[in-house]
Amino acid sequence: MEVQVAAAKTNKYASSQSGDTLEIVERPNGGLSVVLADGQTSGHGAKAVSMMVVRKVIGLLAEGVRDGAAARAASDALYTEKNGKVTCTLNIASIDLETGTLVLSRNNPAPIFICHSDQVDCLDRESETLGTRRAIRPLITEIELEAGLFVVMYTDGLMHAGKRRGQPMDVCNAIQAMLDEQDPSPDQIADALLAHALNLDDQRPADDISVVALKVSVNNGDNIRRMNVRLPLE
Amino acid sequence: MEVQVAAAKTNKYASSQSGDTLEIVERPNGGLSVVLADGQTSGHGAKAVSMMVVRKVIGLLAEGVRDGAAARAASDALYTEKNGKVTCTLNIASIDLETGTLVLSRNNPAPIFICHSDQVDCLDRESETLGTRRAIRPLITEIELEAGLFVVMYTDGLMHAGKRRGQPMDVCNAIQAMLDEQDPSPDQIADALLAHALNLDDQRPADDISVVALKVSVNNGDNIRRMNVRLPLE
Repeated sequence: MEVQVAAAKTNKYASSQSGDTLEIVERPNGGLSVVLADGQTSGHGAKAVSMMVVRKVIGLLAEGVRDGAAARAASDALYTEKNGKVTCTLNIASIDLETGTLVLSRNNPAPIFICHSDQVDCLDRESETLGTRRAIRPLITEIELEAGLFVVMYTDGLMHAGKRRGQPMDVCNAIQAMLDEQDPSPDQIADALLAHALNLDDQRPADDISVVALKVSVNNGDNIRRMNVRLPLE
Repeated sequence: MEVQVAAAKTNKYASSQSGDTLEIVERPNGGLSVVLADGQTSGHGAKAVSMMVVRKVIGLLAEGVRDGAAARAASDALYTEKNGKVTCTLNIASIDLETGTLVLSRNNPAPIFICHSDQVDCLDRESETLGTRRAIRPLITEIELEAGLFVVMYTDGLMHAGKRRGQPMDVCNAIQAMLDEQDPSPDQIADALLAHALNLDDQRPADDISVVALKVSVNNGDNIRRMNVRLPLE
């Protein structure tokens, strides 16, 4: 098998900095974790909060701490530092080669989509953001790694797209339609969802938007790990 | 302008784990850092060492510590933990948007190639690996960010390719030949160098190999940040 992860990210219109932070890091016992946080409001303050949360989480994951415990620790740290006055959403998607599972941790009102065995599940149970009170827990979903698994997660900016014009984006339908096409790659999905959102907002997004797509498939290629990053500069 | 970074990585033949660790992380004041470490020997022990070094470095960079100071701190930490008995190479390539520069830190006998203004420079001054004594310093090179800048760095496995057959890889010539072609992308360069090395070793690499290519170019695309990762599973 092989895992492909793609992320696409844009700032709120006329904002020089995104309040979303996304990092993809290697797990100490094999596999990788995608960590996505969205700090309250936007701009510099939000960025500082989401970076603090992501930094905390990846530091703990690197020490072998489990995802759920890392999310709890990040929440308590944020609560302590900001006296419960600043919130931050957090998603962690981990390919855990120790357990042979995909582990999803969610502290985000935005749902996560999972497609496996031709069935699309939407994880949308009520979920608390980090930092509002002590002892916040993530919702954890664990699924055995198998070819055909597809996950899409995002920050709430995606759901707000189009609202200004009264045409909010139907994310669920958009994902379903794309997955129905022939074997889309994660970067196609992430790019298409973001492009759809930008179109609904006339290329002037009302919020920071980050989209992550993850796919587990049969390994038809080589045994080389690859990473590609593109960073537009101001 | 835009920055593209590509990394390609493979394990030593018949080794389930690479002793190289590579992470690409966002800088707190804008830009990104590529952190590449190669732990002494190979397999599990080497991996633990290179992960420790990379974790230390990315943790410090996230706090705003400068690259050179982060490299020194990682060396002292490794020296203290292993009593000077274990070494690790370290390269950091940073796009620093605060200073508008590319910053290269090198604690690695393997050279770094920089191409700018049609000139290829090879940074090959003698450089100490981390962990052998106290107060190790990196060699730092800082260059203004401009379109056309191209950097290639790698772990020593690339230079060892072909040695078993008495045909060691001429990395410098290989890079020069590729850069002479029409505007290669970083992923083409990284993939081609790794493929060349694997061919010289009959697809059975004698060491872990990691190659990173980084390019600064005119932004002909959109303002979307993208990241793609491919992880083959056992």
